[in-house]
Amino acid sequence: MPGPRLDIAHNKKRFLGVFPMVVEELLDTLRAESMPDDIVEWYRRNLEYNLPGGKLNRGISVVDTAEVLRGKLLEGDEYQKAAILGWSVELLQACSLLADDMMDASITRRGQPCWYRVEGVNNIAINDAFMLEAASYQLLKKHFRKESYYTDLLELFLDTTHKTEIGQLIDLVSAPEDRVDLSKFCLKRHHLTITYKTAYYSFYLPVALGMHFHGITNPEQFALAQKILIPLGEYFQVQDDYLDCFAAPEKLGKIGTDILDNKNSWVVNVALQHVTPVQRKILDENYGRKDSECERRVKEVFIAVGVEAKYKAFEQAAYEKIVGLVETIPAEGRELRREVFMAFLRKIFGRTM
Amino acid sequence: MPGPRLDIAHNKKRFLGVFPMVVEELLDTLRAESMPDDIVEWYRRNLEYNLPGGKLNRGISVVDTAEVLRGKLLEGDEYQKAAILGWSVELLQACSLLADDMMDASITRRGQPCWYRVEGVNNIAINDAFMLEAASYQLLKKHFRKESYYTDLLELFLDTTHKTEIGQLIDLVSAPEDRVDLSKFCLKRHHLTITYKTAYYSFYLPVALGMHFHGITNPEQFALAQKILIPLGEYFQVQDDYLDCFAAPEKLGKIGTDILDNKNSWVVNVALQHVTPVQRKILDENYGRKDSECERRVKEVFIAVGVEAKYKAFEQAAYEKIVGLVETIPAEGRELRREVFMAFLRKIFGRTM
Repeated sequence: MPGPRLDIAHNKKRFLGVFPMVVEELLDTLRAESMPDDIVEWYRRNLEYNLPGGKLNRGISVVDTAEVLRGKLLEGDEYQKAAILGWSVELLQACSLLADDMMDASITRRGQPCWYRVEGVNNIAINDAFMLEAASYQLLKKHFRKESYYTDLLELFLDTTHKTEIGQLIDLVSAPEDRVDLSKFCLKRHHLTITYKTAYYSFYLPVALGMHFHGITNPEQFALAQKILIPLGEYFQVQDDYLDCFAAPEKLGKIGTDILDNKNSWVVNVALQHVTPVQRKILDENYGRKDSECERRVKEVFIAVGVEAKYKAFEQAAYEKIVGLVETIPAEGRELRREVFMAFLRKIFGRTM
Repeated sequence: MPGPRLDIAHNKKRFLGVFPMVVEELLDTLRAESMPDDIVEWYRRNLEYNLPGGKLNRGISVVDTAEVLRGKLLEGDEYQKAAILGWSVELLQACSLLADDMMDASITRRGQPCWYRVEGVNNIAINDAFMLEAASYQLLKKHFRKESYYTDLLELFLDTTHKTEIGQLIDLVSAPEDRVDLSKFCLKRHHLTITYKTAYYSFYLPVALGMHFHGITNPEQFALAQKILIPLGEYFQVQDDYLDCFAAPEKLGKIGTDILDNKNSWVVNVALQHVTPVQRKILDENYGRKDSECERRVKEVFIAVGVEAKYKAFEQAAYEKIVGLVETIPAEGRELRREVFMAFLRKIFGRTM
């Protein structure tokens, strides 16, 4: 099956076309409670500032999955309904990013100041993050409460949120912004962090939503999807960490700052497993310092211990493992289809940004 | 019907007796995901620091409601299950308080430093607040997912959360800690604030949970309960505001700071409706200043415009309205019982702290 057309720019435009309606529906939940205009407008600003500026990969993946499973493009109301599930994922993601940016004391996000740094917002951003999360469920209630899988949707969102927060906790406890302590890093913790903080909500959640939307009910199919998507998400994040350190800024589209920011990155974790005592000392003294000379010394150690070769080996093994799992799906399967996962894999494998 | 024994100290002790099990079950959700010990311990500290220290009125009200409806005390597993619903409310409340304290830059809560001010916590408290919220749903899933009203419970928690966040937003936007502007206050906004920020989750939510637990399914009964409990919650909060300003500290059990903290209190809102231009100027110049002489001048204006008489009139009208609504419930009703609401009213009416 060739599958429906997956034109990234077109898909994004189509997805963004639903956004104004999403905003109005959410504002209506406040208008229905007779909230004053300035409160409704605050909520609008929160939604419009924090929601549509990213790549929207997670939201669009819900629609992509539904279309691959259906074997044709969705149209009209059906497209809109799938896109609303996608925007619910984007709301969850926006909530996480808002909170993460405050906890990491980040400066910019998606090319604009982080929301909490916008004049007049400050700590109100904490409540705004909670309101983005609640907005997800308002959309689900309005559009899906009559579906047989409504409770499954609620549980899926709630469980994924719980997992993402656990992942965030490991990350925060392991790599506090203000205190460098490489002895807190280890590959096993890094694996847990990226699995919980990223893989569940970025990879499993959108596909599982597309599967529910398509009418899949067999728990084994969901378990198989998870078995494939968690390593896929892990691979994606390891690649992200690697590119942050080693990709040319003009290819990456930004300047990586993981070393400067004391990030619990795959790269430093792998390096720590292979350093000599002398190299370890260099990392201890230079990692997480806001200084480009320190950053240069850290990169020298990374190169000396052969991080690049280890990355290539990891990538190869991940690719083979994922393809192997995908191939356990019958080629002519009536429920899950290989193409759901292969489309992801093609997008990710070999990317440079 | 005399109703079951409502001994406050005994009920609190009994309710706290379930807490260790609640903690262990929640920690198990992390252990089941193979989380490292320090992460599990962080979560334990979050739960134990932030959950059991308050009056637990909201959680205990769930059990009280269920017992009044049942007409007898709950025991064994049945008590435990009702108490777990109660702890789910307390988790939601703890989440709100954690976030509120950060947004209000509060110093202490329940006689100990606010969680975000504890050494090593700081902004991780944002994620911890989200984790308390998620914990509610983990408990519901474990204990109620097989109940016919499970989806109703999820929606009730999700909708109540949305409403509480809206109320928090009005409060934050109307009375920023760092900028005094009394023109932003008005009684209508104050009414909306306390209804959404407090009344839904503190009054309607516990009773509605008790009703679901008892097996009530008729939406009209829930609508009637809401119609009674929202004004009851409003009355409670107005009383809270009044006592903060006018109760003797030894009776209140604390020193009121609403005037110093620029709080959007019922008292200042009522005064603003009745001040002369000269009195208004005094309020503009002295409200929300961290200065006891300013506070004294504000209180003089409050007394001069007759806030006390207006409070007595409000209290009387609220009481009569609520009792009138309660009396629409048949005295020998098979579902909702008057006593559910009268017990609340007795506890609140005429309290001094």
